[in-house]
Amino acid sequence: MGENDDSEIIEHHVDEAMEKKTSQRSHTHSFLESVTSSERDGHSSTQSSHRLLAYSDALISIIATVMILPVAHTKVGEHEELKDSFQVLLATKIAVYLMTFLIVTVAWASHIRLFQVIERIDDFLALLNLACMMLITFLPYTFTLMATFPEYNLGILLFCGCVMVIGLIQAVIVIYGFSRPFLLNEQIQISQDQNYFKHHILKVIMRVPIMCLFASIFSIIFLQLSYVLLAIVIFLPYIAQSLKWCKAKALGQPLEDEPDAVLFYTYHPSEPLSKERVEAFSDGVYAIVATLLILDICEDNVPDPITVQEKFGGSLVAALRGYGPEFLAYFGSFATVGLLWFVHHSLFLHVTRASRLMGLFNSFSLAFVGGLPLAYELTTEFRHDPRNAPEAVQASCVILFFAGIFQLAIWVAALFDERRTLHPLVRYGGRDHAFMLAKLALYPCVALGTYFLTCALSEFSTSIFHLMQLGVPVAFLLLRLLVSVALALLRALLTALRKTPEGAAAAAEGGGGGGGGLMEEDEEARVPFTDVVS
Amino acid sequence: MGENDDSEIIEHHVDEAMEKKTSQRSHTHSFLESVTSSERDGHSSTQSSHRLLAYSDALISIIATVMILPVAHTKVGEHEELKDSFQVLLATKIAVYLMTFLIVTVAWASHIRLFQVIERIDDFLALLNLACMMLITFLPYTFTLMATFPEYNLGILLFCGCVMVIGLIQAVIVIYGFSRPFLLNEQIQISQDQNYFKHHILKVIMRVPIMCLFASIFSIIFLQLSYVLLAIVIFLPYIAQSLKWCKAKALGQPLEDEPDAVLFYTYHPSEPLSKERVEAFSDGVYAIVATLLILDICEDNVPDPITVQEKFGGSLVAALRGYGPEFLAYFGSFATVGLLWFVHHSLFLHVTRASRLMGLFNSFSLAFVGGLPLAYELTTEFRHDPRNAPEAVQASCVILFFAGIFQLAIWVAALFDERRTLHPLVRYGGRDHAFMLAKLALYPCVALGTYFLTCALSEFSTSIFHLMQLGVPVAFLLLRLLVSVALALLRALLTALRKTPEGAAAAAEGGGGGGGGLMEEDEEARVPFTDVVS
Repeated sequence: MGENDDSEIIEHHVDEAMEKKTSQRSHTHSFLESVTSSERDGHSSTQSSHRLLAYSDALISIIATVMILPVAHTKVGEHEELKDSFQVLLATKIAVYLMTFLIVTVAWASHIRLFQVIERIDDFLALLNLACMMLITFLPYTFTLMATFPEYNLGILLFCGCVMVIGLIQAVIVIYGFSRPFLLNEQIQISQDQNYFKHHILKVIMRVPIMCLFASIFSIIFLQLSYVLLAIVIFLPYIAQSLKWCKAKALGQPLEDEPDAVLFYTYHPSEPLSKERVEAFSDGVYAIVATLLILDICEDNVPDPITVQEKFGGSLVAALRGYGPEFLAYFGSFATVGLLWFVHHSLFLHVTRASRLMGLFNSFSLAFVGGLPLAYELTTEFRHDPRNAPEAVQASCVILFFAGIFQLAIWVAALFDERRTLHPLVRYGGRDHAFMLAKLALYPCVALGTYFLTCALSEFSTSIFHLMQLGVPVAFLLLRLLVSVALALLRALLTALRKTPEGAAAAAEGGGGGGGGLMEEDEEARVPFTDVVS
Repeated sequence: MGENDDSEIIEHHVDEAMEKKTSQRSHTHSFLESVTSSERDGHSSTQSSHRLLAYSDALISIIATVMILPVAHTKVGEHEELKDSFQVLLATKIAVYLMTFLIVTVAWASHIRLFQVIERIDDFLALLNLACMMLITFLPYTFTLMATFPEYNLGILLFCGCVMVIGLIQAVIVIYGFSRPFLLNEQIQISQDQNYFKHHILKVIMRVPIMCLFASIFSIIFLQLSYVLLAIVIFLPYIAQSLKWCKAKALGQPLEDEPDAVLFYTYHPSEPLSKERVEAFSDGVYAIVATLLILDICEDNVPDPITVQEKFGGSLVAALRGYGPEFLAYFGSFATVGLLWFVHHSLFLHVTRASRLMGLFNSFSLAFVGGLPLAYELTTEFRHDPRNAPEAVQASCVILFFAGIFQLAIWVAALFDERRTLHPLVRYGGRDHAFMLAKLALYPCVALGTYFLTCALSEFSTSIFHLMQLGVPVAFLLLRLLVSVALALLRALLTALRKTPEGAAAAAEGGGGGGGGLMEEDEEARVPFTDVVS
């Protein structure tokens, strides 16, 4: 109710006013004419693309995480000699998972590009988009075929086929959109050279399917070359543009002023990215990953009534005790993924605008988040195994560390261009700057700490791990308090320092150098500095 | 870019203006004071709850559909004598799926109620909500235990335990929210008797955990009674209020004017429901269901390299041919679920405000959508089996019919109160009324047609089914054209009729009786009628 409903009422009234206009018009025309004319101008049948994009994001996020399931269900062999082949198999599956995640993310990025140009949809575009989605969801399977049968060309042919059809559908969407300009982005609508935009966009879109056509032809003659070709097609634009951008940033050169076209279909790291869609995609991935273990538990961890009678003498509790580790792993991973989501959510509340580079770091973070439930499962399973337990705990810590550090990287990337991308509260010197840093740094620090602790005290590794799992949610609850206390201590220290002139000079220096590299302690200290100075 | 980005820029500027204010204030205070004062008044650390709710919706939609997986993976026994026990097992699993779906939907509805009262969140509430979600995602498992071991009380104890903790967390959220009124719904914020609201809401929330406490105590003494108690607790408020509402509607009595409190925590069918959340929840379910089969395909339908060498002489295509039905089922079910989503999307584009009754029909529709992929899988698997094929096709048709008919029911429920719930375009006499009806009626009609066709021509059932799968997307593409043609024909017929005075009288009658029952042909005819008359 309240805010939401008020706006709904307003919208409703506006709609009614619009309707009055159209009904007045339809009084003068006949009914039949009004139906056909609406088809001709088409305006009234267009729709906001918001929900279509949300649904696409949900589909793509499921597909991105789906290849973690084969990794999860890889069974550990009992015999020592099977272990090697198991490790090879596991490594292949993990590689497939990561590559699928990357490729689906690239497909998602191109989907965002497309619908930054086409901003309104009609029924025809909605149906075309569904067809496109159907093919995207099939990509992980073709990719599995490629990885399992690298010496056959069927996988690459299927993959290229899908990508070509997706490219063609996207081209049809663009042509359809430009033939009905009211569907387009406003900037393109008012622009003089719509035709230039159209050709530029079509050229970028068609590049991929044409290269895929070559790759599929090559796959018949010389298979290895077509793999290389594919990798170039998909990743080169990103890598090339990123290198160019990094070079420009490193040399301190201003980026050259490009024409209008650059706003669409460039591969700049600073190209704008719809913040809404990053959030929707991330929510989807976090939600799937958080529930990944319950999917298995509901299916597999219900004992058979006959087994309970025969093996456990009718005691259901005794029968369920064997599944204890699974439940523990589920609650542990749900809490961790939930808290990582919470950090992500806090960060993006203060992000006003996202860039491609931030999206890239976000994807990396999500890819690691996807591995967390499995690492937790292994850790809980091996908890009484003195040989494997420390390794499993350490693997969990590494994954957790990378998931957290890439979240921190999103923020660092945002800070580079903070005027455009961040809310003033969390910019350098903003009131919540230190608090946000603490939130983002908590998981990487905890993971690092646990890692080194388990290296030192390997026999207590499981206890340390469980202690961490319990401690982190408490830390999040008390975080604002802890940060306030830390800042108060720092401030007391500073006021003591400020009485000497050297301290004041140091403070001024600290407040001035806010654009360069970024060290954690450095920053925690800098916040009160800048605030005191300004 | 364009619209979206403009609004982002505006938001950004507003934020900056706000920030200037706060930074001016912080010039007068010291930094430390501003941190602690912000904690005291808390305003600046509150956040819009939009994304938290979207994430919760994603989690709940996954959980609602998760119990379909055990149904999917029930293996058909080879022997005839195993078939009976298989059918019992399948029926149990389907019952568990439907009951889980219902219970999760009830939990979701209570989550919506709660966050219609608490409209803004802070970190503490976000963390509490995550804890609540963790327990909700565990409900399906406790429910499986109850269904598999009805004579043990462990399942019901676990279930009651979860529900009690969820209720306590919700109560804490309400108490916390009322202690910080800026978090509340605006209507409550400006209301005089906040305390009345607080007690009313707490009373409604605490009713469930208290009854669960009784149920868990009874479960030790007399198990059957506690099942009855649970069913009463969960469903009675809905059923009682619905019956009351139906009675009032049927007798044509106006609903009595209730006090303000009725806006929150009533169980009226006309109680407002956040349209946004219905969309988010539905998107989640549609997305999971659409990809349900690809999850299995990616994991199970990759042949083993050794098997390919030994059994198929190195021919990968031959090895994959065995999986043909699975792929066919995947594309068929993706297309069907996608098109049902498309219909849902078209409908909710024209819904301005949702009610509980619409939400209920939506849940029913979604529950049937969840069964579609499995029905399609069975249909494709049995396509060469003359005994089982017609049955499988008919089961698919029945599920498809109910999924579609409940979507139509949403619209009918909306039409009862069309001034508040529907966009003028699709109301009685609106320009797109007939088109929307055609969209919603397409799937139920096709399913019904296919069902009766396969009854009559049972040996061609699979061909008819595949024809239907191919024909429906084409029908959706051409639907506007088809409806226009049908209307044009009708209109030509009408103008011929109108020349006689009897025809005009009939038309006036048709336009006047727009509130009663609803027959398809009736309505398709009525639209041009009302338009011609008014």
